[in-house]
Amino acid sequence: MLGMLTPDERQVAQSLLAYPDHSVGRMMTLDYVAVRPEWTVREALDYIREHGYDRETLNMVYVVDEAGHLVDDIRVRRFLLSPVDRPVKALLDGNYTWLAPTDDREKALALFRKFDRVALPVVDENRKIIGIVTVDDMLDVAEEEATEDIQKLGGSEALDEPYTTISLVKMVKKRASWLVILFLGEMLTATALKYYEGELAKAIVLSLFLPLVVSSGGNAGSQASTLVIRALALGEFKLRDWWRIMRRELVAGFSLGIILGVIGTLRITIWSFIFPNTYGEHWGLVAATVGTALVGIVMWGSLMGSMLPLIIKRCGFDPATSSAPFIATLVDVTGLIIYFSVAMVIMRETLV
Amino acid sequence: MLGMLTPDERQVAQSLLAYPDHSVGRMMTLDYVAVRPEWTVREALDYIREHGYDRETLNMVYVVDEAGHLVDDIRVRRFLLSPVDRPVKALLDGNYTWLAPTDDREKALALFRKFDRVALPVVDENRKIIGIVTVDDMLDVAEEEATEDIQKLGGSEALDEPYTTISLVKMVKKRASWLVILFLGEMLTATALKYYEGELAKAIVLSLFLPLVVSSGGNAGSQASTLVIRALALGEFKLRDWWRIMRRELVAGFSLGIILGVIGTLRITIWSFIFPNTYGEHWGLVAATVGTALVGIVMWGSLMGSMLPLIIKRCGFDPATSSAPFIATLVDVTGLIIYFSVAMVIMRETLV
Repeated sequence: MLGMLTPDERQVAQSLLAYPDHSVGRMMTLDYVAVRPEWTVREALDYIREHGYDRETLNMVYVVDEAGHLVDDIRVRRFLLSPVDRPVKALLDGNYTWLAPTDDREKALALFRKFDRVALPVVDENRKIIGIVTVDDMLDVAEEEATEDIQKLGGSEALDEPYTTISLVKMVKKRASWLVILFLGEMLTATALKYYEGELAKAIVLSLFLPLVVSSGGNAGSQASTLVIRALALGEFKLRDWWRIMRRELVAGFSLGIILGVIGTLRITIWSFIFPNTYGEHWGLVAATVGTALVGIVMWGSLMGSMLPLIIKRCGFDPATSSAPFIATLVDVTGLIIYFSVAMVIMRETLV
Repeated sequence: MLGMLTPDERQVAQSLLAYPDHSVGRMMTLDYVAVRPEWTVREALDYIREHGYDRETLNMVYVVDEAGHLVDDIRVRRFLLSPVDRPVKALLDGNYTWLAPTDDREKALALFRKFDRVALPVVDENRKIIGIVTVDDMLDVAEEEATEDIQKLGGSEALDEPYTTISLVKMVKKRASWLVILFLGEMLTATALKYYEGELAKAIVLSLFLPLVVSSGGNAGSQASTLVIRALALGEFKLRDWWRIMRRELVAGFSLGIILGVIGTLRITIWSFIFPNTYGEHWGLVAATVGTALVGIVMWGSLMGSMLPLIIKRCGFDPATSSAPFIATLVDVTGLIIYFSVAMVIMRETLV
């Protein structure tokens, strides 16, 4: 019985460390009990009593054939509740599943969610059992995976160490890489604004609402990308559903844009009545520009925020890369262009 | 034996629904087995065999006194591995813990992480056992709690329903509330910019770098707040450690600010050499302004991003409220003031 060996601790550690990071092999334990289908329940119980006492993980008993191939897994209490002269064979229900040592731990997490098990067997390419993974380790995995996603969504690399103990140099490195990428992306706003410098000079008032309008698109995009990335991580939909997601986000983005657009227009109108001349004689045109641009930019932000994670996943990368700051930066640049394009249409006569 | 009752399903459902949302009472099951300490292992096993067959949750057996008070919990396999004439009393190790039905499920999650159990007992105020909670439900809890935090961090209310099935009207409502709050906050940028309108008119070039400088502070703040919020959720530090966190973030923010400041200054300098007159004759002053402002704003963003979640938690609210977009909005407004203050010092002679 493979599982009944009491292996040299060091050798075990070395063999487990040979598996890739975040793989099932890294988290499996050799601490399981295996019995044979031709034994009786009494023989199995005697065997368990003899070999299983110290095993922390004795909630499931694995049934294997003479070559060690996995045949089924049975809850230990089934043995407890069965007549002792019945053969183990009679307890088999064929309801079992297994993991490969090279499987990603996220796959293990998904299987544990689907199958109501406290432990799952790990088998090699010949379906010989080589270890088990227990559900209490899965709680840690779920937590670590969520932490990674959350940190990426916040616009930095995953720290892979607790925030409180990671060295300052390491943390700055992990944060600097993304911050610099975002900074380089955001530089395009300076380029775009340079292009509209003439319009800005003629209507300084436009620059007053620039951060307001542009950041609203970024916020709408952050919401959309975060919701879509989490739904993807939970397996709520597949990439081929992109068209359904896009339709939802277009409608949601339009509604949200209308809400913000109305508030923005009202703000400029009311201010212009209370404090005359704040926004010049053309305040009506400014209000129209801001309101219209908001609808366009919020829709655009929602669309980008929802579609980019799907595109990134399609390209084989982690969708959590399209974090809130990443989307906000992209929407900043494109939002500027939308804003000035709207302004040039609505305020043509003032600007020319 | 309380636990051995086969209660009317409807009554059970009603009694469980009486507990508050997200409480332990809502997720507990009555499907457990309890035995008495004065029984022998044989008596206990007979009892388990008779009453426990259908119980999905028979991994732990609860030992209770005659009044139903919890005395200990024992893994079912201990019974299996013990001589049958030993009293149950002899198996007790006093190593157990319990939950109250009114406990928050996050507390249950923390206990499961700490104690290596597949199930935990739930007791009433007299420490009478009234149900159990199993670890497989905890996986779902861990996932749901992470989803809530992630959605809040993305700048919307938690959806509380899958993204793919929630009605569009509900989703727009959940997103609109935060988007409007952020919009109202961001309106302060228009107010601040109005105040600096004179400077803007004299140096249009300042507005070109406005989104770049301000959004970098927002990005640094997003990183800091996300890391701190997750570390808080994982219990990596306590509120009273705020001074240590603040020191770390000041150093990290300063380093990150220097990195971005140097890149920003180089960008303006190089562009001014390649395309003379892009940023006017005072490009040197502009470069100095952008570089200096970046150091200040990135430090300020890191400081706000790390301290606000702590302040919000101190006030008794959910720290995840201080999401990336929330911090970005706050830093936008204050960042503007830093930017123009720096500009007024460095470019005094040009602006006057």
